[in-house]
Amino acid sequence: MKFGYFDDAHKEYVITDPKTPNPWINYLGNEDFFSLISNTAGGYSFYKDAKLLRLTRYRYNNVPADTNGRYYFINDNGTIWNPGWQPTQTPLDTYECHHGLGYTRFHSSRNLIEADLTAFVPLHETCEVNYLKLKNTDTKAHAIILTSYVEFCFWNAVDDSTNFQRNLSLGEVEVLGSEIYHKTEYRERRNHYAFYSVNHNINGFDTSRDEFLGAYGTIQHPKAVEEGTSYQTKASGGAVIGSHRIEIVLNPGEEKSFIFLLGYAENADEKKWEAPNVINKAPARETMSHFQTDGQVEDALDKLAAYWTDLLSRYSLDCADEKLSRMANIWNQYQCMVTFNMSRSASYFESGTGRGMGFRDSCQDLLGFVHLIPDRARARILDIAATQMEDGSAYHQYQPLTKRGNLDIGSGFNDDPLWLIAAVSAYLKETGDFSILDERVDFDNDASKADTLLEHLKRSFNYTLTHLGPHNLPLIGRADWNDCLNLNCFSKEPGEPFQTTGPSEGPVAESVFIAGMFVKYADEYARINKLLGNNEEADRAYKASKDMSDAILKDGWDGKWFLRAYDAFEEKVGSHENEEGQIFIEPQGFCVLAGVGVESGEAEQALDSVKEKLDTKYGIMLQQPAYQSYHLNLGEISSYPPGYKENAGIFCHNNPWVSIAETVIGRGNRAFEIYKKTCPAYIEDISEIHRTEPYVYSQMIAGADAPKHGEAKNSWLTGTAAWTFVNVSQYILGLQPDYDGLIVNPCLPDDIHELTLHRTYRDSNYHIHVVKPEGVEKGVQEMLVNGQKVSGNLIRPIEGTKEYNVEIVMG
Amino acid sequence: MKFGYFDDAHKEYVITDPKTPNPWINYLGNEDFFSLISNTAGGYSFYKDAKLLRLTRYRYNNVPADTNGRYYFINDNGTIWNPGWQPTQTPLDTYECHHGLGYTRFHSSRNLIEADLTAFVPLHETCEVNYLKLKNTDTKAHAIILTSYVEFCFWNAVDDSTNFQRNLSLGEVEVLGSEIYHKTEYRERRNHYAFYSVNHNINGFDTSRDEFLGAYGTIQHPKAVEEGTSYQTKASGGAVIGSHRIEIVLNPGEEKSFIFLLGYAENADEKKWEAPNVINKAPARETMSHFQTDGQVEDALDKLAAYWTDLLSRYSLDCADEKLSRMANIWNQYQCMVTFNMSRSASYFESGTGRGMGFRDSCQDLLGFVHLIPDRARARILDIAATQMEDGSAYHQYQPLTKRGNLDIGSGFNDDPLWLIAAVSAYLKETGDFSILDERVDFDNDASKADTLLEHLKRSFNYTLTHLGPHNLPLIGRADWNDCLNLNCFSKEPGEPFQTTGPSEGPVAESVFIAGMFVKYADEYARINKLLGNNEEADRAYKASKDMSDAILKDGWDGKWFLRAYDAFEEKVGSHENEEGQIFIEPQGFCVLAGVGVESGEAEQALDSVKEKLDTKYGIMLQQPAYQSYHLNLGEISSYPPGYKENAGIFCHNNPWVSIAETVIGRGNRAFEIYKKTCPAYIEDISEIHRTEPYVYSQMIAGADAPKHGEAKNSWLTGTAAWTFVNVSQYILGLQPDYDGLIVNPCLPDDIHELTLHRTYRDSNYHIHVVKPEGVEKGVQEMLVNGQKVSGNLIRPIEGTKEYNVEIVMG
Repeated sequence: MKFGYFDDAHKEYVITDPKTPNPWINYLGNEDFFSLISNTAGGYSFYKDAKLLRLTRYRYNNVPADTNGRYYFINDNGTIWNPGWQPTQTPLDTYECHHGLGYTRFHSSRNLIEADLTAFVPLHETCEVNYLKLKNTDTKAHAIILTSYVEFCFWNAVDDSTNFQRNLSLGEVEVLGSEIYHKTEYRERRNHYAFYSVNHNINGFDTSRDEFLGAYGTIQHPKAVEEGTSYQTKASGGAVIGSHRIEIVLNPGEEKSFIFLLGYAENADEKKWEAPNVINKAPARETMSHFQTDGQVEDALDKLAAYWTDLLSRYSLDCADEKLSRMANIWNQYQCMVTFNMSRSASYFESGTGRGMGFRDSCQDLLGFVHLIPDRARARILDIAATQMEDGSAYHQYQPLTKRGNLDIGSGFNDDPLWLIAAVSAYLKETGDFSILDERVDFDNDASKADTLLEHLKRSFNYTLTHLGPHNLPLIGRADWNDCLNLNCFSKEPGEPFQTTGPSEGPVAESVFIAGMFVKYADEYARINKLLGNNEEADRAYKASKDMSDAILKDGWDGKWFLRAYDAFEEKVGSHENEEGQIFIEPQGFCVLAGVGVESGEAEQALDSVKEKLDTKYGIMLQQPAYQSYHLNLGEISSYPPGYKENAGIFCHNNPWVSIAETVIGRGNRAFEIYKKTCPAYIEDISEIHRTEPYVYSQMIAGADAPKHGEAKNSWLTGTAAWTFVNVSQYILGLQPDYDGLIVNPCLPDDIHELTLHRTYRDSNYHIHVVKPEGVEKGVQEMLVNGQKVSGNLIRPIEGTKEYNVEIVMG
Repeated sequence: MKFGYFDDAHKEYVITDPKTPNPWINYLGNEDFFSLISNTAGGYSFYKDAKLLRLTRYRYNNVPADTNGRYYFINDNGTIWNPGWQPTQTPLDTYECHHGLGYTRFHSSRNLIEADLTAFVPLHETCEVNYLKLKNTDTKAHAIILTSYVEFCFWNAVDDSTNFQRNLSLGEVEVLGSEIYHKTEYRERRNHYAFYSVNHNINGFDTSRDEFLGAYGTIQHPKAVEEGTSYQTKASGGAVIGSHRIEIVLNPGEEKSFIFLLGYAENADEKKWEAPNVINKAPARETMSHFQTDGQVEDALDKLAAYWTDLLSRYSLDCADEKLSRMANIWNQYQCMVTFNMSRSASYFESGTGRGMGFRDSCQDLLGFVHLIPDRARARILDIAATQMEDGSAYHQYQPLTKRGNLDIGSGFNDDPLWLIAAVSAYLKETGDFSILDERVDFDNDASKADTLLEHLKRSFNYTLTHLGPHNLPLIGRADWNDCLNLNCFSKEPGEPFQTTGPSEGPVAESVFIAGMFVKYADEYARINKLLGNNEEADRAYKASKDMSDAILKDGWDGKWFLRAYDAFEEKVGSHENEEGQIFIEPQGFCVLAGVGVESGEAEQALDSVKEKLDTKYGIMLQQPAYQSYHLNLGEISSYPPGYKENAGIFCHNNPWVSIAETVIGRGNRAFEIYKKTCPAYIEDISEIHRTEPYVYSQMIAGADAPKHGEAKNSWLTGTAAWTFVNVSQYILGLQPDYDGLIVNPCLPDDIHELTLHRTYRDSNYHIHVVKPEGVEKGVQEMLVNGQKVSGNLIRPIEGTKEYNVEIVMG
């Protein structure tokens, strides 16, 4: 069952039924001001930090689902409806929600009145524009009362939803004509306020939520709206809203437009006030002046579209498979950009009130956006690296506003350091900018400890080597990529954090997954040193990578697949000897993609075992059999009901590892099959089962053990975006940036015979046409670059050449 | 405007209009299991700790106001209504909500069906009983579908409302017949679960909220209820509810009853499971067995009533003023008991998700309940004292579950230590149990540092003496009773805690309020030592008290009132020399009640100034003029808009200090006038302005500077309960427990001519009849004890005598 369709020409997903299984959302904003917006106009806005500087209130896990948003009530002779259906839920004659790149547009109608509402955050502005057009398609005039509504948050979203003892006495506003200013706490230490304005005369307004709604009133039926009036309330304490009332008459065929702005403004301390208790409105007025006319709005929308068109042109695919094309060209890259902007901070599941940015997460996310915005990737790498400790370990999280490591969580997640090598090597391959390695970067945010970025990579590399266990495999520490496999924790108290309780440091639990990572990233570290002429260090790293590969094959191989780990008692985890959790996905994917056992056959055996033991129609499960009860020696993984999350859920993040691994051994059909199972565009038809948005990946899909097998959760903000894009762009479609140029090495299924890739790479444009003869899955038989035959499959940049037309024949 | 009435005979407040300005609530439970319940059946339940062990979800600051509760939907041939009006808000033919002592009863009707719902937590049980009776008063039969509803919380209320990434994959239930078990996280480290049962066969059930409500459904219109069915859903992830569907036919005149139980149960680790993944239900079944029949429920209700009757009989008043009587006899004491149970932890304003218990708060609360439950007061004192530091200072808060000091807040609130003397002296006066002073009590919860409680008092006393400033007045530290007067903080960053940011230790800001406290409690400390025969220590303390009184009159007197403080720069705060904040209430009240300036005239002058400068028709404001802007040197007090909270709000807590002060100088009319202004029963008629419950005190009423002057906030959990009871019982009605017996010293207004007090005191009963001649406000002319004339006004216990009939003539 579908709730809409893809409109690839406009790069939109168009939702045609507002009652989607979950709120299906979009992200607006690219720099400092962001909004979440659902298919019913729900959501919230914030400036820079979703927890600390939130402009509007959202009610999480509420009933009805997805409440509070930017709402426009149209009272057309007593029939009250919204362009986004919510909150009135009045049935619409027509309804469309177009989620596009950086904007969301609603086009709805009721009783021959058409509403067209476009919400977007303009480039370089700190506001959300809500551009509303109302048109009368009737043959008679309609008198309409239009009422707007947002509910303001008192900035810190956690405090806002808990500290009522203080907050209910704080609310303050100023209202001037059509401009509503939310200035709570501006009187004291804040130098910022929010505003909500419209470029139209108003007939009235409200700022007191409870008076607007009426006693025990609901947002479904606000008293003011139902009475067709407003009360001109000036909030003094209580909950603060912004609401304009505009009365218009639309003659037959007539259309009127309204530009509402929800904005953030700040003043220098010495310029806070115009007069005693009167805020300085200059910066808000400046923003408003940019959006007074339809032309200004249309212009801003054009610029936004141009921004995205330019950005996405850096990688694009022409191919007969429209689902593959739309994901590669539009949605997967878009999700990567959103994940860059948000990390894991703000979605409907990640409520935007918690943790900082993950060291591991951010390094992996970078793999997905480095080709789009290499300059910002460079800055991100330097920010992340500065939180690394002197011994090479890393704070597991850091705070985006301060860019400092998060002391509450600390370090000891022993895969973290290696992800820095992954991120830096991806940046080097994309840009060729080796100067980044000479940048001096703090350790532990302490400038006195700064050293080069190359030294940071060395410490990362050394950290694993100095933290090996009894089987010469890496010690796992608090946890590796699987945050929920807590082998050194032994938590018995409800509510304790599984990772940071218990010894964590000292015990001998080892991770075969980190071992696989080390094989791959020690090799990258070696290659970087080789290119720098540091041959001794390169040789040391090559040898370490090889030794680790040997250690895996010696003590990390279970006979038919790779072990997952040894626990703190040196017992095997992820072995056929276990009753539950016999086989895990992570080491199979990562060891093989790192090349372990490819020549000696273990790789193929391991991937066959994955197919036999872990595969389902909705994707590959994390492990099997699921844990039926809590295992003190394993931790959080066994705390989930079977089939959910890490306890045998389908974790989308590591499905591409297996797909990549399949390409490494040349099985294009299987790689693509795996790709399609979790790829949202391919499962659009089962949206009633999948439930999350069919245009973006989710973190998890319930596994075969779960009653709701196939139901996805936690959409949008997941490393899945980056890894699936790496998989599809570099391994399946096979365009791999490397230190010396672009490698072309597709690994394709039978039903793809031909494709063309367009790629901007180091300021040049590549147009690569691939032809695949029948029966071939992988291999390049012939390559022509600008008409010249080139041996191998590496396209080396040619001095002075900016355009490359490449013809590839596989075989 | 009123929304109900007092029913003194039943000790109830009866609400007759469900649309009260705020949810008007009641507290159920006395020991470990507690529930909050509003006049529309909203609220939530918890076991021991409102944050960590919460059974049901409540949505704070939601619209509509007051959602989630225990809801019973009555579907009577398509008309769907609730006994508590919410959530359907279907108009009722009749509606009554009776808030009684430990129970709440709804009596409502619609279409000739009567519903009678009584909610209570039985003594010694860990459950809430919802006893529902449905009666058909029609002449024809009604077929009714009864649907119950609670939404479960995943125990930790903070995690439950933020960590959706994990929580949405956790939910688990078991359903057996009419028994619904919520067992989320029981599979791992929890050994407790919740249950929701009914003593009746059911026709169906639901446990998945979103399926019960329908897509984008609301609790106002649950899909299952509107369809007249249930879906027998077994929650697996998502939000978990308990809902029973019962189909009955009520013949004319017929009544049926249902006993619903919402309970908490726990098992020892080795008894967690009946079978793999099947929880051990024995403790829940044991609870259920106590409430299978109407007789069992009625019996439990009788026992609850007997408990409260016995408790409140320890202090009661017969008097012509019914408002005074109902507050003194019922509601003020009831609020004191609730405040004992909850401290500041759980109300609709204190969301139950935050802080621990306050050292200062708990010591003051004890003044209000020590006469009711002296044994528990004793235990509380020892708990509190154990968090005191070795230097006499105190953790400002401590955690109720661990009884340890809260490191996050730390110490340095320099009034805290003195409140321990206040609490202990109140306990000694009530009980005569001096053995408590010999108890060995930890310092800083460290048994190795334990010493006698008397030593703790000495450290408290010494702490002030060793922390004096340039004017020999006590250093204020982080803050004194007025948490928002932050003289050493200088916070510039939004969101910083005002008290714990900045130097706090070291600077020289001084508090005249603490000085007044010291005069009073150093004197109490001296008296205690005198009684123990420690004459030297007693003399030292008497002298220190006198010296402090002199210091106040020398440097703490502003000419017409007492100064509030000296700030960190030795500038005056609360002086006519200031532009704003010229006069504060706290030092006027406390210095005078401590006796400062009573003989020399400053006391009367100060109280006259209070009346002139701070008085309003709704009570006495905290200070005047209100601060119009943020003052870095004053802190949080100036962060509130004028008229709210500490910035010139009417803080109810310190109004009784002024009333007591008036009794100290003998002005009974003015004392009683002040008492009445904030006393809820006297302002019941302006409930539309006052807004909070007319049967309990609130923390704050908006002052004259506020647009909403007279609006109260933060009802129920406030030290106001204790201090107003001290005021009315000990100072206005004048029955003062003292070390040697009961002092009778009323100070009354003109319109009270006669009254009788009944008091249980040290296992004896006192019946004290007071007659007041015309024109008298204070003074005892004649006292007869059991017919014997006794000089003075102290009733000393007589060996072997348990009943005391006392006749007092004032004059």
